[in-house]
Amino acid sequence: MHRGGKLSVASTVPLATREDLSLAYTPGVARVCEAIAADPALVDDYTWVSHTVAVVTDGSAVLGLGNIGPRAAMPVMEGKAVLFKQFGGVDAVPICLDTQDTDEIVALVTALAPSFGGINLEDISAPRCFEIERRLEEALPIPVFHDDQHGTAVVVLAALRNAATLLNRKLGDLRVVVSGAGAAGVAVTKMLAAGGVSPDEVVVCDSRGILHPDRPDLTASKAELAELTNAAGRVGGITEALRDADVLIGVSGGEIPEEAVAGMAPGGAVFALANPTPEVHPEVAARYAAVVATGRSDYPNQINNVLAFPGIFRGALSARATRITEGMKVAAADAIAAVAVEAAWSDGAHQDGAHQDGAHQDGAHQDGADVGQLRIDAIVPSPLDPRVAPAVAEAVAEAARRDGVARA
Amino acid sequence: MHRGGKLSVASTVPLATREDLSLAYTPGVARVCEAIAADPALVDDYTWVSHTVAVVTDGSAVLGLGNIGPRAAMPVMEGKAVLFKQFGGVDAVPICLDTQDTDEIVALVTALAPSFGGINLEDISAPRCFEIERRLEEALPIPVFHDDQHGTAVVVLAALRNAATLLNRKLGDLRVVVSGAGAAGVAVTKMLAAGGVSPDEVVVCDSRGILHPDRPDLTASKAELAELTNAAGRVGGITEALRDADVLIGVSGGEIPEEAVAGMAPGGAVFALANPTPEVHPEVAARYAAVVATGRSDYPNQINNVLAFPGIFRGALSARATRITEGMKVAAADAIAAVAVEAAWSDGAHQDGAHQDGAHQDGAHQDGADVGQLRIDAIVPSPLDPRVAPAVAEAVAEAARRDGVARA
Repeated sequence: MHRGGKLSVASTVPLATREDLSLAYTPGVARVCEAIAADPALVDDYTWVSHTVAVVTDGSAVLGLGNIGPRAAMPVMEGKAVLFKQFGGVDAVPICLDTQDTDEIVALVTALAPSFGGINLEDISAPRCFEIERRLEEALPIPVFHDDQHGTAVVVLAALRNAATLLNRKLGDLRVVVSGAGAAGVAVTKMLAAGGVSPDEVVVCDSRGILHPDRPDLTASKAELAELTNAAGRVGGITEALRDADVLIGVSGGEIPEEAVAGMAPGGAVFALANPTPEVHPEVAARYAAVVATGRSDYPNQINNVLAFPGIFRGALSARATRITEGMKVAAADAIAAVAVEAAWSDGAHQDGAHQDGAHQDGAHQDGADVGQLRIDAIVPSPLDPRVAPAVAEAVAEAARRDGVARA
Repeated sequence: MHRGGKLSVASTVPLATREDLSLAYTPGVARVCEAIAADPALVDDYTWVSHTVAVVTDGSAVLGLGNIGPRAAMPVMEGKAVLFKQFGGVDAVPICLDTQDTDEIVALVTALAPSFGGINLEDISAPRCFEIERRLEEALPIPVFHDDQHGTAVVVLAALRNAATLLNRKLGDLRVVVSGAGAAGVAVTKMLAAGGVSPDEVVVCDSRGILHPDRPDLTASKAELAELTNAAGRVGGITEALRDADVLIGVSGGEIPEEAVAGMAPGGAVFALANPTPEVHPEVAARYAAVVATGRSDYPNQINNVLAFPGIFRGALSARATRITEGMKVAAADAIAAVAVEAAWSDGAHQDGAHQDGAHQDGAHQDGADVGQLRIDAIVPSPLDPRVAPAVAEAVAEAARRDGVARA
């Protein structure tokens, strides 16, 4: 499947005659260039820029493989571009950079930016990824999105929303442990706070244990998390963190012992997202938690970024958003959660023998009553569900307008 | 035609099932990444890099429009990418850089290089284009080609070869005037020398007149041309340069007065390539020259780079050439010239009522006799002739192997 790569560039204009040639290229193209030179905003109308995203990596943190460099990272970036196109209708170009210097990456992507409508950062190691994203967001008038952080965080929030519904709990009442304080851990923690989880009741652990402000070994991003979370001032390791917790979100890759999981409050949720080896085996997790999710496609409830990034960029590009706000990410999570509810409802209706299309149209699935049909093994939609990206795109575009960052 | 741009990125793999998804992306893609990490040469087999070219500009010298910047340059770069695909089957990605600093451009393109199999520089102003190309050629293990220089030069050499045949002259005996000492003028002069024109008999003019080593106002690239050419030490303006010359090649955009053209030796050739206004109007040129060519599609003998670059890159990429040598460019010119001869022959055979297919197969058009059928208004093939790019690609790949720069 990967031989020869997974992408091609296609022309969208005819080129059969001399006239086609003189319109698509010289001399006809000159008029278009002159129009854009006179009014730079026309670049959105008369080029592919406004529907094109660069998928940028330095190859420093590729999948679970680590720092394998830009060439070996290319198959992943191509795969990402395939998903962008398939699910979001977004044209994505993989850009693998031959440098891992933060300043150089910022300068490079800044200089590339006129060619693209958005920048999807990918597989860049922490803590460099935080600074790179922050500086690019400040420098560029287009959306910048580090998918390993925010894509994961958006889908986790979506999953937790539906898990809370199933558990008949409010997000704001849950005690949550985030195991892992790298790129994903930082973003998940902030996203949960933006989505309604009380940060006071969140405890974040790295490989050395619970983050708290008195720890002398914290990086800047971990120190920020320590301030934001753990209002009770808990100390210790993962076992202490999990004692009586309702939710465990593993984004570390480190194994979490069964004894620690056994200390959780009964009837909670475990999201063990490391790939290919979850922090807690899902069958072990099921002994102690009512809802279990992983990052794997061979278990139920796959927390897969593909539920988020195609629709987020589709929505941001169609609103010509200048950036991706917290509100847009929360809107994306809500839309993903809603599609899972809709899917559960329509599956349920289907199983009951009701006429699915008619049921859809009468809007009955919009009210709270059907939430009861949400299934414990389908708290997020299938990554192939074609309803997801359009729903996310619409919600994100709307949120962009609400947040005042839309140009269209 | 330009609304929404002229390109899209297409996926070449299926993505209908969960299994497709897990093969194209995680976890399946990890094996491909690991293979490339272990043997970087596999990037050619398992990614799109080996059939992909970056079309890079800084927007400093776009068409005849000048320094209109990266955004306004995008429609041209998209058009170029369309031509790359249509004629050469090469996947080309337009990259418009938001800097015109030589050092920055070199650093940027160097860092981008792992993502591409070749770099086509486009519409970068002289003399920066010379240094940028030279430094990138030194830095990168892939072909770097400034099309405004070498594409033009290759097609000029092809046209001049056939013009010489029609005029019954040898390239080495022609007295040639190149009017214009910018990017194209420098490249044309060097290409003609590589192709068999005697540089002693070439005179190059810039806007101030004939280049000779005693002129105190020459840039480095012009001083180099002054040393290479004009063995007779001619001085003066374009009128003095053209006196008794056999060939005028205009690549300047500056108007050349009829009186100056009138001084040429009778029965020569005028290639007035400026667009949209040729240096000499083709009807004026026809009063003094037997063969006339322009850069325009509405006159015969259009010197169009599209005859060269798609096939040159197709050939260089298929041979996995590490650079584009003089030999590869001469081979491209010869192939273009040969297609014009073949086209003239098959057109002639067609007009005579001979059976075209049969005539093709008997190979009679390969010997010298059919050169007589070459038409004075068709010294180069039509830019839409589908025979050109494959012929150029084959010749270029063969030359790459001959010159020892092929990796396949």
